[in-house]
Amino acid sequence: MSYFRENIENTPGYTPGFQPAGADVVKLNTNENPYPASPKVLEAIRNVSSEQLRRYPKPLGDDFRLAAAEMLGVSADNIICTKGGDELLSICFRAFCDDNRPVAYPVPTYSLYPVLAQLQNCRRVEVDFGGEFSLPAELADTNAALTIVCNPNAPTGTFIKPEDLRELAKKLNGKSILLIDEAYVDFAEGDCVGLACDFDNVIILRSMSKGYSLAGLRFGYGIACRQLIDGLRKVKDSYNVDAVSVAAATAAIKDRDYFRKNVEKVKADRQILTVELKRLGFTVTESKANFLLAQLEGAGGIYRKLAEQNIYIRYFDQPHLSDKLRITVGTKVENEKLIGTLKKIISM
Amino acid sequence: MSYFRENIENTPGYTPGFQPAGADVVKLNTNENPYPASPKVLEAIRNVSSEQLRRYPKPLGDDFRLAAAEMLGVSADNIICTKGGDELLSICFRAFCDDNRPVAYPVPTYSLYPVLAQLQNCRRVEVDFGGEFSLPAELADTNAALTIVCNPNAPTGTFIKPEDLRELAKKLNGKSILLIDEAYVDFAEGDCVGLACDFDNVIILRSMSKGYSLAGLRFGYGIACRQLIDGLRKVKDSYNVDAVSVAAATAAIKDRDYFRKNVEKVKADRQILTVELKRLGFTVTESKANFLLAQLEGAGGIYRKLAEQNIYIRYFDQPHLSDKLRITVGTKVENEKLIGTLKKIISM
Repeated sequence: MSYFRENIENTPGYTPGFQPAGADVVKLNTNENPYPASPKVLEAIRNVSSEQLRRYPKPLGDDFRLAAAEMLGVSADNIICTKGGDELLSICFRAFCDDNRPVAYPVPTYSLYPVLAQLQNCRRVEVDFGGEFSLPAELADTNAALTIVCNPNAPTGTFIKPEDLRELAKKLNGKSILLIDEAYVDFAEGDCVGLACDFDNVIILRSMSKGYSLAGLRFGYGIACRQLIDGLRKVKDSYNVDAVSVAAATAAIKDRDYFRKNVEKVKADRQILTVELKRLGFTVTESKANFLLAQLEGAGGIYRKLAEQNIYIRYFDQPHLSDKLRITVGTKVENEKLIGTLKKIISM
Repeated sequence: MSYFRENIENTPGYTPGFQPAGADVVKLNTNENPYPASPKVLEAIRNVSSEQLRRYPKPLGDDFRLAAAEMLGVSADNIICTKGGDELLSICFRAFCDDNRPVAYPVPTYSLYPVLAQLQNCRRVEVDFGGEFSLPAELADTNAALTIVCNPNAPTGTFIKPEDLRELAKKLNGKSILLIDEAYVDFAEGDCVGLACDFDNVIILRSMSKGYSLAGLRFGYGIACRQLIDGLRKVKDSYNVDAVSVAAATAAIKDRDYFRKNVEKVKADRQILTVELKRLGFTVTESKANFLLAQLEGAGGIYRKLAEQNIYIRYFDQPHLSDKLRITVGTKVENEKLIGTLKKIISM
């Protein structure tokens, strides 16, 4: 017999991206920022006292909420701190979905959504993005309790205009929560924070992993109207963010200059990498994230040959993606090494 | 309308313990360790590199699992790291309970259990502990999917002998998971780790908040057979523990000498505090935790008068507890201040 619920027993769970070790590895497979976090983050971590460790932290991560609220022009009451963006996703599934309350999202997208649906035992309505990766009209009529749009989308890097999502929010109002997963929005122009203020059914997800180079810290947050935030707080663990990560994430979000420079570097290198890949014959989707989706016949084979050379990118053997490679924008040196190796592989 | 599931809408959520600020406050209300963590913990935190922050952490907290496994004499495969013991509780409710799979536990106990049951929409079978706080026989016959025993129990401090829990594990085998919440076990003699190795239905919960003075870090872990750990891993967030807290918790659990001395100090002061409270007329339950449950007529009034003097302890206005005070063992100075103030209040 199994002690687990049937839906848990039957789910394979999420498979985290491969984390190769070794100094000569070029790791462009999990969309980490190639540059380090602001020096102020390390400083904040080194200033943590044993008294902060000994005592329970503030349950809501007040310092971070205040800093993020100021940056975004919202109130701290509109913000919930979470252990990475993933925890906010998990909280939303637990708050809004069950066997009678389905989730809907366009595909292909972040592969964690179906896993969370299975854990919460809710039906999934997966709507095909179509070749242009624009917002499918059917998404407004799914009768889902929770509708998720990842924007910029992973793994395509494509960006849906905020005004299109505003239309969707309006259509779903009174029917469904619209969760806009903005984990990669730091590399785009524009965002949907305004929708969280204007609609009582919109939640914006943010992550400190990508734009702030803090994947190892596990820190994210949600932005929504007060009423939604109050409900989500009931579902989260009482003390879901710890004293050290709150201090570190607060230092990161306050250092606006460092953040802007870091993001601009990645965006500039994204442009160079796009041009180089096109020169090699790839069709490259316009990306507003810190990765590129590049199409070429024989993508799967290229992926394997790169891995043999200790260069790791991501390959998804599934519809719309099996002829494409997802490549994280790395440092200049890493990007050049990738392009050099690709040249050799393709000319073989 | 509400966008939330009905059970979420109807739950008030958990109320974290009051965290008074101020230098002259004596804070004996949330069972924090009065002494700081090992200096090696701060050292580990200060040695965290920006590269560790930039990269995703190891999904399973390998360094900690290895250190804890060595300390306990189990395999690292028998351990799951969690964001505080609370996250393990929440994972277990999601893994084992739903509207057809109830939870059972003896009461009074940790007030988070009923909140998690409501969030997971599962029925609660609450079995009265009785005046002696021994294991109720009915707990073996509840037909619950998950049975929780907090040992030492909060807020009573009482300890059930491991052989009694072994009997319960045997009776529940094939029928229910037995989750033994050992958040306070560092202050007891004996524990139930052996049961996790001998039974495929036992999970042991541990916390770094109490015995290791790391409440602010949010780190806990579970011990169970390989098959249960594998299932629980599917439910947890992919990267639920961050690089900094893994480094800190690993340093803490490895410093055995510091841990032993810290715990011995608390146990010695617990004994002194027990004697002093009895001298003041309190009936004090024998405690195996880092707090005392002390009974005296007019407990509620005493609690309020202490708060007026900036001395915070915990009062629960509920069956079995409304004539009692829960007092965290503090530093010698804090305990003496408490006793001195109690003397004045009681003689008034």
